[in-house]
Formats: sequence, structure tokens, C-alpha cells
Amino acid sequence: MNTITAISSQTKSANRGMPALKKLRVALFGFGVVGSGVWNILEHKRAEFRKRFGVDIEVGGICVKNLEKERSVALPAGLVTNNIADLTQDNSIDVVIELIGGRYEALDIIESALEGRKHVITANKLVLSHELPRLRTRADRQGVNLFYSASVCGSVPVLRALDELLIGDEILSLRGIVNGSTNYILTLMDDGLVSYSDAIVQAKEKGFLEADPTLDVSGQDAGQKLSVLTYHAFRKHLLPSEIITNGIEAITSEKVQAAKEAGKVLKLIASASRDRKTGEILASVGVEALDKTHLFAHTRDEFNALEIQTRHAGPQLLYGKGAGSLPTASAVVSDLVELLREL
Amino acid sequence: MNTITAISSQTKSANRGMPALKKLRVALFGFGVVGSGVWNILEHKRAEFRKRFGVDIEVGGICVKNLEKERSVALPAGLVTNNIADLTQDNSIDVVIELIGGRYEALDIIESALEGRKHVITANKLVLSHELPRLRTRADRQGVNLFYSASVCGSVPVLRALDELLIGDEILSLRGIVNGSTNYILTLMDDGLVSYSDAIVQAKEKGFLEADPTLDVSGQDAGQKLSVLTYHAFRKHLLPSEIITNGIEAITSEKVQAAKEAGKVLKLIASASRDRKTGEILASVGVEALDKTHLFAHTRDEFNALEIQTRHAGPQLLYGKGAGSLPTASAVVSDLVELLREL
Repeated sequence: MNTITAISSQTKSANRGMPALKKLRVALFGFGVVGSGVWNILEHKRAEFRKRFGVDIEVGGICVKNLEKERSVALPAGLVTNNIADLTQDNSIDVVIELIGGRYEALDIIESALEGRKHVITANKLVLSHELPRLRTRADRQGVNLFYSASVCGSVPVLRALDELLIGDEILSLRGIVNGSTNYILTLMDDGLVSYSDAIVQAKEKGFLEADPTLDVSGQDAGQKLSVLTYHAFRKHLLPSEIITNGIEAITSEKVQAAKEAGKVLKLIASASRDRKTGEILASVGVEALDKTHLFAHTRDEFNALEIQTRHAGPQLLYGKGAGSLPTASAVVSDLVELLREL
Repeated sequence: MNTITAISSQTKSANRGMPALKKLRVALFGFGVVGSGVWNILEHKRAEFRKRFGVDIEVGGICVKNLEKERSVALPAGLVTNNIADLTQDNSIDVVIELIGGRYEALDIIESALEGRKHVITANKLVLSHELPRLRTRADRQGVNLFYSASVCGSVPVLRALDELLIGDEILSLRGIVNGSTNYILTLMDDGLVSYSDAIVQAKEKGFLEADPTLDVSGQDAGQKLSVLTYHAFRKHLLPSEIITNGIEAITSEKVQAAKEAGKVLKLIASASRDRKTGEILASVGVEALDKTHLFAHTRDEFNALEIQTRHAGPQLLYGKGAGSLPTASAVVSDLVELLREL
């Protein structure tokens, strides 16, 4: 680990009685909506972090694929590269924040960073759903932290809640709406009885769906998140292929209408539980018809909700924005704060 | 602080490569439903805490007012006293868990414990709503921790959520159902249109209401919790007298029926926000008629819910059991786990 180095910009008299201000150098991989959101929050919160933790967070470099791309937030001059190794092999960098998405290139960034004993923060559920135990072991061995709050349910601190519950209690099962895009589509279909294809178009216009919506509507995105959640609830890693996954592609306005007439609302639900007899962890993603009095029935638009059944504390529910650049950026920053606390 | 002492029961060979097992001695004040619940969870989780934190948690003493009282869980022999000073002045005790309730005697226990550099865990919202800033300062000066998750919303980790959000984000307002007893009464009245007095009787039978229900039905209990919440959301302490507090005593089945006909549900809501112009924190407790599609309208029985509006992460909601012995005991144990982590 690159130890945090004290900077000597403070005079001795100003410094009297105060611990020396330390510096934490961060490298950002990816500068899309989330990456630029993180940049903005860090600029905004810098003075507060200094005051609260005595640490000056400095973005030491930004790596993007395309240097020429037009962006809503201009790339900060002098910090940008399109060469991964410029940052992963920079010994002055303490923390790598990986926000490029995709599988193998992102994995490479994460592994190189851990290899160089840098802390890693990532939002990459695809990589995590395949490699979580191995990457955690690697980080432990290197003596660095691997944080990934932003990979599941955006700003809703579901992983931290599971970790806390797991220590003082026992988790029996979890169920949730963990994909904001499909929940937005199902909400549109339920509210206005619009067709599936019209809802897809509207969701894209609102920025809640990628140009290729397959990962969301097939349930794969929810499956990847469920893999991460299951690891934290039961300390058991399931590959996406081990999770029975169905999406919303077969949902028609007729089906939504029929459910409505029966007092039900259709929702894409991810769930996992431990089989009482075999101890095996069963996990699946699929559409369920929920009673309209259920809290999930009132989890609308791009919101996410997770219900955790525990032995002692009873059921707990967390709810919040699961999609969008600011909630996700906010989750990345909360991981950085967690890191500041640990250090 | 009484430093945690290593015990030498392990042989050197068994100990090779492992850190020495440490001991943390806890004193329990109060052995009612919550205190005996804490005792049970600690017995149940002891091996896990040892394995996970390398710490052996030992209950070093239990203080109760009445040694002769019949209890559902028998008092563990050899550990019990009715003399507070036996435990607060015992140098071998590291942590005091105060669960006796009430104001001045509990305050005395907390202050004596801090004075003796013991960590304190309490569920006492009455004491906290009057003394929180002073007790926190005292704990800081003594170099010990003061934790009180169980004082608000039972097992729902609302204070930790506020603390986390406050660092990486900004809290704009909070609103919640924070009193399980009155929520149980209002649910009964809404479901069956029973009278207020019949609902009170049923809530007492279910164990959701004290013999004297005044603190709950007047809104005072919710006001005390709101004082603690407000401190964590805005770092501003409000005395209960500074919170506009109304209860549910004036609610009749006619009022519930009228709300129902308008598509509304009556709920006792605690809310706090920062005035945009003056910066002042405004806090109040009172009955509101909520649209039946609102998530709070579906927060039934003894459940609690808290909605937090944030600048970056959007609205977040936490939901879970707010009353009952196990949820509260579980919150106390989670504070103990937090303490193990800090140590």
C-alpha cells in the first residue's frame, strides 16, 4: 500500500495542536455520468473531508478510452490519459476507482491496482458476480481494501446493512427490486397500460435504459447484483449461471391488466434464501404478481427496495434510488469515506 | 478505559499464528425483556464473536432493582447485584449497557460509567433527548465510546444511515413513523374501525403499550426519538420542549373513517428539516393524513419507517420493526459489534 504522505504546505504555527494534513491520491477510470459525478462531489466535499478526516483527497489522474469525446463535464486539463498503465503503475496513486464497466478490461484494471497495493473502489457488478471471492482474497493478501457499494442498488447501503446484520444476527432470506430500469418500465406499463415496446422507448428517452437494453430486460443485471447480495447475506458465491434468471421480455399490457384486475402489481423480483434442510442457497430472478398492499408494489419508477428477513431483528427493508448518475456517484464517494475511516 | 486484557487459557501451540484471544467484560443494567434478550443473543453468538474478532465477551455483572422479581429468563447465578456502584466502580468492567429506562438514575449510571472510562451502550431516548451533546463530549474526553442505536427505531439502523449520509452527502429533511405502539393502534383503528379506547386495550394485551400509555399516545416518545434523529441528521440538538408535539389522543374512528373515504390513512409522523432561509431546524410530531399509495401508508402494525431526503442520493427509506424485545436487543448487540470493530 502506498502510505498516505504528509504534505508540508501548512506552517508550523497553523499546524500546532492539529495532526498533519495527509494526502490521498485517487485515480478515476471512466469519466461518464458516474465518473464526472464523483469528480463533482469530491470537488464540492474536499474542504469537509479535510476538516473531518485531516485528509486531502486529490484526483491524481483520469483514464478514459476516448480523449476526443464530447462530455457534459469537461475533462480536467493535465490529468487525463488513455493509457491504463499510466495510472495503475503510478506509485503515487493510493486508490483506483474503476467505473468503465464491461468485464475483462475492468478486471485487468482492478487486478493491476491490487497488484500495486492500491485500494480499489468499483461499481462493476459484472466483474464482481464472476470474481468476487478471488478479488477479495487478493485484496486481503495485499493488505488493501476493495469496496463496491455502488455495484448494487446505487445509493442504498444494502451491502453494509447485510454485513452488519450478519454479525449480530442471522439472515434467513432476501428479496428485492434491484434493477431500476425494468422497474421503471413496469411502472409505466402499470400506470398507463402502455405496451412493452412503447415503455422501452420511453425508458430510453429518460436515460434509464442503454441503447441495447438486453442486460436489463433479460434479468441478467438483476442476477449479477443478486450474486453480490447473496455473497454478503450468506457468504456464499453464486455465479450468474447458478441463478435461475428470467426477465420482463414476455410481459404484455394484457398481463399487466389481468394482474391489476386481481389487485396485483407485476414486479421483477430477485430473491435468495437458504434451504432449511440442505443448507443450500437458492437464488432466482423473475416477475412476480404482488399484492398491491405490499411495500414492493409501491416501489415505483427507478427506485430499488430490498427486504431482508432476519432471525432476531425481524424483517428490514431498505429503499432508495437504484439508478442514475448522482445516486451511484454518491455510493462511490461513501466507499471513499469508508476507506478514510479505515485508514 | 480499561484496556482489554489478554487471557492465557490458550496454549502456545494452539495460539501459533493467531492473535491472542482477548476479553471484553460487560455489565448489564436492567434484565427485563431487552436485557434478557441481549443476554441470550450474547450466549448464542459468543463463539462467533471469538472467531471473528478474537474477543471473548463475558457478562461480568447484572444490576437489577428487584432481586426477588419473577422473570421469564432466570437471573444468571453469581452475577447479580442491586447496587449500581458494584458494577460502575468495578475496574474489570469495560462496557456498561444501560437498559433500565427512566431519567435520573439511568443518567447517573451512564455518567458514572463514563467517569470510570467505560464504554456505554444505552437505549435510553429520554436521557439522550435531554443530554446527548453533553454526554457525547464527555465520552470523547474520556476516550470511550457512547453508542445508542437501540434508542431509535429498534433494529433499523437509522442513526448509522444518517451518519453515513451526512459525510458523503447532505441531508435536507427526514420524516418517519418512529413509534411502533401508536402505529399499532392506528393500524387497528384503520383495519377494523375499532374505537380508540378498544385499540388501546388490544395494544396493551399484545404487549405493545405500557400500563400507562401516556408517553406513547401523547407523541412524547416520538418527540424524544426525533431529538436524537435531528442531532444525527443536522448536528443540531433540540430539547423535547423545542419540538412541536401532538399525539393520537384526539383520533376517533370517525376521523379514521373520513380519511379512509378520501383515500387517506392517518399516521403519526415525526419530521424535521432545515429552513432554507434561516437555516433553523424545524421539528414536529403529529398525525397526518397520507395518500394510501405512500410507503408510510403501508407501514403497518408495530413497524417503523424513516424517509431521508438527501441532496445527491435522492430519497432513502429504511423500514423495520421498531418495537419488541428482540429487535431492540439486536440493536444493542449491533452496538457491541461496532465497539469490537473500533477496538
